[in-house]
Amino acid sequence: MYNIKYYLDRVTEIFDQETFLAEPRELYEPIDYTLRLGGKRIRPTLLLTANALFGGKEEAVRGAALGIETFHNFTLLHDDLMDRSPLRRGQPTVYTKWDENTAILSGDTMFALAWRYFLRQPSPHLQEILQCFNETAIEVCEGQQKDMNFESLSLDKVSLDDYMDMIRQKTAVLLAAALKIGALYANAPDAEIAKLWIFGIHMGLAFQLQDDLLDGYGDTAVFGKKTGQDIRDNKKTFLPLTALRLCSDAQKKELVGLFSSKDNLDEEDKVRRVMALYETIGLRASVEKAIADEFRNATLQLDIIHAEETLKTPLREMLETLNGRKK
Amino acid sequence: MYNIKYYLDRVTEIFDQETFLAEPRELYEPIDYTLRLGGKRIRPTLLLTANALFGGKEEAVRGAALGIETFHNFTLLHDDLMDRSPLRRGQPTVYTKWDENTAILSGDTMFALAWRYFLRQPSPHLQEILQCFNETAIEVCEGQQKDMNFESLSLDKVSLDDYMDMIRQKTAVLLAAALKIGALYANAPDAEIAKLWIFGIHMGLAFQLQDDLLDGYGDTAVFGKKTGQDIRDNKKTFLPLTALRLCSDAQKKELVGLFSSKDNLDEEDKVRRVMALYETIGLRASVEKAIADEFRNATLQLDIIHAEETLKTPLREMLETLNGRKK
Repeated sequence: MYNIKYYLDRVTEIFDQETFLAEPRELYEPIDYTLRLGGKRIRPTLLLTANALFGGKEEAVRGAALGIETFHNFTLLHDDLMDRSPLRRGQPTVYTKWDENTAILSGDTMFALAWRYFLRQPSPHLQEILQCFNETAIEVCEGQQKDMNFESLSLDKVSLDDYMDMIRQKTAVLLAAALKIGALYANAPDAEIAKLWIFGIHMGLAFQLQDDLLDGYGDTAVFGKKTGQDIRDNKKTFLPLTALRLCSDAQKKELVGLFSSKDNLDEEDKVRRVMALYETIGLRASVEKAIADEFRNATLQLDIIHAEETLKTPLREMLETLNGRKK
Repeated sequence: MYNIKYYLDRVTEIFDQETFLAEPRELYEPIDYTLRLGGKRIRPTLLLTANALFGGKEEAVRGAALGIETFHNFTLLHDDLMDRSPLRRGQPTVYTKWDENTAILSGDTMFALAWRYFLRQPSPHLQEILQCFNETAIEVCEGQQKDMNFESLSLDKVSLDDYMDMIRQKTAVLLAAALKIGALYANAPDAEIAKLWIFGIHMGLAFQLQDDLLDGYGDTAVFGKKTGQDIRDNKKTFLPLTALRLCSDAQKKELVGLFSSKDNLDEEDKVRRVMALYETIGLRASVEKAIADEFRNATLQLDIIHAEETLKTPLREMLETLNGRKK
């Protein structure tokens, strides 16, 4: 049972046993649709794993596992509406399958349902657990706002620090919170929880940077989506922001220009020119090194956590899976 | 200090002392704007009053008072977006002053901020308090969905029971929850809390039915908005739904027709025809009786609550104020 698949299977079971349909149907059908779409279920899997790491019992964290995934899916639902993304996991998003109002209200309801799941099981640490969840939720909202702010900024007006801060809030803290909450339910010592938190942040950053890398260098057939979409969308990801640091003044000017173009350039030509520039400055190796650094920092934290080595195995496996992922 | 103004002043003070601005400004400015717009602050005032009724201390419920009002304003913010209402309290709504995405995300953040306020203060009843708040939030969402469902239904397809159930969820439960939470923080006995809840539900229903009545019979100068708007919008409120019960078959047909018209009729003529029909069947007296019944039922509950009579005074005053309100 000391592998990540074991915990993922438990999560799948927890979700299969749960009913998401209720009245009025118009409100709950989009919720059921969203939560049944699946996805990687990384957050609840991490939560269960961290709980077991400190001797916790699965029964005590089923609610929290449902809660953290329901919250995550709520943020995706509203993000897809705000970003006007028609597809998620290859399926139509709620606002396209239904409409905008349905996406707004069923999203709001999912946020409340996440709380219902969290409030199901008592814990001597309940207030701390709920505060951790809620402060994380606020950070995720702040991160999403910063991400939207970047859209209207020129590439050279976004600093790499701002970007790292944004993805920490939008992506990494929720992974760290999943681990912390799992550990809190197992009454883990504060010092171990602190290390687990840092582990989660580094893993989350690595995860997002890899997402950025795959957009440029993924294998379309495996990645499941066309590469270069961030370039077409002028998204200020880790790739162009790191590139700026490696560029000559002339290259910098070209890159900033390419990332502010609006339909006045053939899209595929734009992708080719950006990728060629990346090639010239050796961007890929630089980004891969940054990702490897995050993974190494995550591993360093995991190494010093006081817990049974066999119980750490699933988390090491998770790092390896994420590290080697192609999609 | 045994009057409603005392508690309303405390609420005003609590809000004046709180800072709602933070980074990123793009996220928090609309939140600050919304929470500073004021409004009647009925819910936190009820919460403080119920707390004092059972000997609670104001310090213990400041967070909950902020939390319940922040939640209420979050629902208004998203409702205004879903209903495309350009004005609230005479000022532009967030989605018009900023944009739709800002309204979505700052609303989401307000929901999380409401939780932050609730989680500020510990209580031996914290889990029960939070569950009460959250189940109420879910009911408010369900009520909003039912309200939206009514929009696409013909007048004769909405029953009065369905309507009462909708306004119970959308409006009444939050007033009842404000009272219950205030009482829980004061460690009130379960039996008294149960009566307070019923009191709140009746008060909430009376409040909404009066809102419906004022749309038809309010004094425009005092009411602050043009009467007959619900008729122009084909809204299936307590007025037309009660009218159906008093109508002849021919009148029923006429009313259903008027409430399904879309721009194919002069709006003011439509309002006049509906109001004339109401006049013929004596609708106003019938609705006023229903409102009086709700107020009487609320009073009956208040009478049997075991608490000091002087401390009940503010709640009686609140009923009187609501009963006599012209806007």
